[in-house]
Amino acid sequence: MAKSPEQEHPIKAFGYAARETSGHLAPFNFSRRVTGEKDVTFKVLYCGICHSDLHSIRNEWGDALYPQVPGHETVGVVTEVGSKVTKFKVGDKVGVGTLVGSCGSCDSCKSDFENYCLKFIPTYNSIYHDGTMNYGGYSDIMVADEHFVVGIPDNLPLDAVAPLLCAGNTIYSPMKYYGLDKPGLHIAVVGLGGLGHIAVKFAKAMGLKVTVIDVDMAKKQEAVERLGADDFFLSQDQEQMQARIATLDGIIDAVPVVHPLQPLLLLLKAHGKLVLVGIPDKPLELPAFPLLKGRKLVGGSLMGGLKELQEMLNFASKHNITADIELVKMDYVNTALKRLEKADVRYRFVIDIGNSLKPTA
Amino acid sequence: MAKSPEQEHPIKAFGYAARETSGHLAPFNFSRRVTGEKDVTFKVLYCGICHSDLHSIRNEWGDALYPQVPGHETVGVVTEVGSKVTKFKVGDKVGVGTLVGSCGSCDSCKSDFENYCLKFIPTYNSIYHDGTMNYGGYSDIMVADEHFVVGIPDNLPLDAVAPLLCAGNTIYSPMKYYGLDKPGLHIAVVGLGGLGHIAVKFAKAMGLKVTVIDVDMAKKQEAVERLGADDFFLSQDQEQMQARIATLDGIIDAVPVVHPLQPLLLLLKAHGKLVLVGIPDKPLELPAFPLLKGRKLVGGSLMGGLKELQEMLNFASKHNITADIELVKMDYVNTALKRLEKADVRYRFVIDIGNSLKPTA
Repeated sequence: MAKSPEQEHPIKAFGYAARETSGHLAPFNFSRRVTGEKDVTFKVLYCGICHSDLHSIRNEWGDALYPQVPGHETVGVVTEVGSKVTKFKVGDKVGVGTLVGSCGSCDSCKSDFENYCLKFIPTYNSIYHDGTMNYGGYSDIMVADEHFVVGIPDNLPLDAVAPLLCAGNTIYSPMKYYGLDKPGLHIAVVGLGGLGHIAVKFAKAMGLKVTVIDVDMAKKQEAVERLGADDFFLSQDQEQMQARIATLDGIIDAVPVVHPLQPLLLLLKAHGKLVLVGIPDKPLELPAFPLLKGRKLVGGSLMGGLKELQEMLNFASKHNITADIELVKMDYVNTALKRLEKADVRYRFVIDIGNSLKPTA
Repeated sequence: MAKSPEQEHPIKAFGYAARETSGHLAPFNFSRRVTGEKDVTFKVLYCGICHSDLHSIRNEWGDALYPQVPGHETVGVVTEVGSKVTKFKVGDKVGVGTLVGSCGSCDSCKSDFENYCLKFIPTYNSIYHDGTMNYGGYSDIMVADEHFVVGIPDNLPLDAVAPLLCAGNTIYSPMKYYGLDKPGLHIAVVGLGGLGHIAVKFAKAMGLKVTVIDVDMAKKQEAVERLGADDFFLSQDQEQMQARIATLDGIIDAVPVVHPLQPLLLLLKAHGKLVLVGIPDKPLELPAFPLLKGRKLVGGSLMGGLKELQEMLNFASKHNITADIELVKMDYVNTALKRLEKADVRYRFVIDIGNSLKPTA
């Protein structure tokens, strides 16, 4: 008979888990493995709430395992390292993002894109190499192979840096891959939310001209005055759209629901790139002619590799970039998820795990 | 009052034109300009029939001008050159493809992609710099600025090379741009027709592994035995599709009607590229997740630039590549267009203009 989550491993752990498709999170006693020779164990201090946590706990992608402890934007302080760990020592500030494992031998792994390994192991809602369930960062401690652990630069506040572990790399990785990181380029960020506001910050730090496109006029002031965007307009404003045809080198499209691509394709110059980082649950309409005329492309990107993750954090450190967050207590998490669903957060919730997650014994 | 097509210019010309949206082609007397100082005038010998001719004469793209003489895969022999022409002399074998003009000063023009100039001038169904109508290659003579004229390599038969002027560049240009020209890569060509069969020939000459995907089993033998494809399967064969998931570096999708993209995206490896060169008249369904997972892209490409056009012809010359054609007489053109509509041609019609276009005086 299978062991209970509480007895499966030697180390007692505590967190918040969803038990079924309502996605309601409640206290959960489970266990973590002993620190292996290449493992890093750390006390969790903060964990960001990612929109994908919401999809996953409710089984909206159809692959949910329960009990499910979400959380893949986790930062904390190292409490133990294995004998063969070389990158970290006790007391280091570290983070774990979206991945805790991959095959290590495929083309993607060998080129530092573990996120595209066909056997990559997500941080939660997945099975580890040893056959046991992976539980995420809405918990008191975590253990991970050092390859999947990154160092958090000293100058970045631990709470506000947490969302970069997923959202940061989700933006940084495609900007590099699609060449949208060159000073002087003009890009648009569509959808000023958790991903979008980070895209604006990175793009400005890279020396780009940035236009924000949203459906909410209230975002204009934030985009331009606070985040430093160069331009803002509403996607429903036909006149403004018309005036900007063929002006953009690229678009970071962070809209997580179905929306028309044709107007965005028209905003691109020849050879322009429309990069999708949001995941609408239904197919988008792609008109062929606006894509062919001007040799444009629609590209996807999902998370980023571990090498990029550290590179992104170092870039964020150099330019003093973190997410704009609302820090919440652990027992506020279900309310936070409901508010996130309505996009009622500027721009990312982070759970203050270290100060508010209390074991119920 | 505007001059009639016959009196507009000093040089008498004769061809076949569509007068209205039925697209029926009938004899047409018109005129060509005198050879300008940078112009090349040539006697037309052969002109390929491109699928876009069909769309254009019937006003299926909504921009038809009448009378319309189609034809943008034209080859012939130079009869006169202007005083400042440096590239050609009388007697040279030349061709004109899809373009006869562009602005010459935009980023696209300056980087040899006149085809992406926002002011590019198509070879027919368009207005030239001088304000007169452009007429295409279904005619006895043509005049074009030497920049838009290419030399036809000596070893290629003039009839079978004609389709390369459009179809050849339509395939060659995106293979270069999207990096699908590297020996050892594995691509699929979807739709074995006018564009597709040229894609197979170019890809094999570049040293690629080539799989052909079509809906017609009768194409298997041709694809594999005659064109040298390495593999063939039917797009409706779920089992074969399943067995080939994540095996391709790229796909050249030449299907001109609406078709599902999801199965094609699944065939791509991580970072794989799906390139659309056909133009379905309704939007395609693009599912986000299969695009994001593996960082794939769907790119478009339309024709090619003039520098590429000559480069493509030189590559074809080196590898002895031409189109597989059915040579028809001028008065067969309406029948040929009807057969083309049903894809009843292997693989490209070429009109024997030189031997069969008789002026009706």
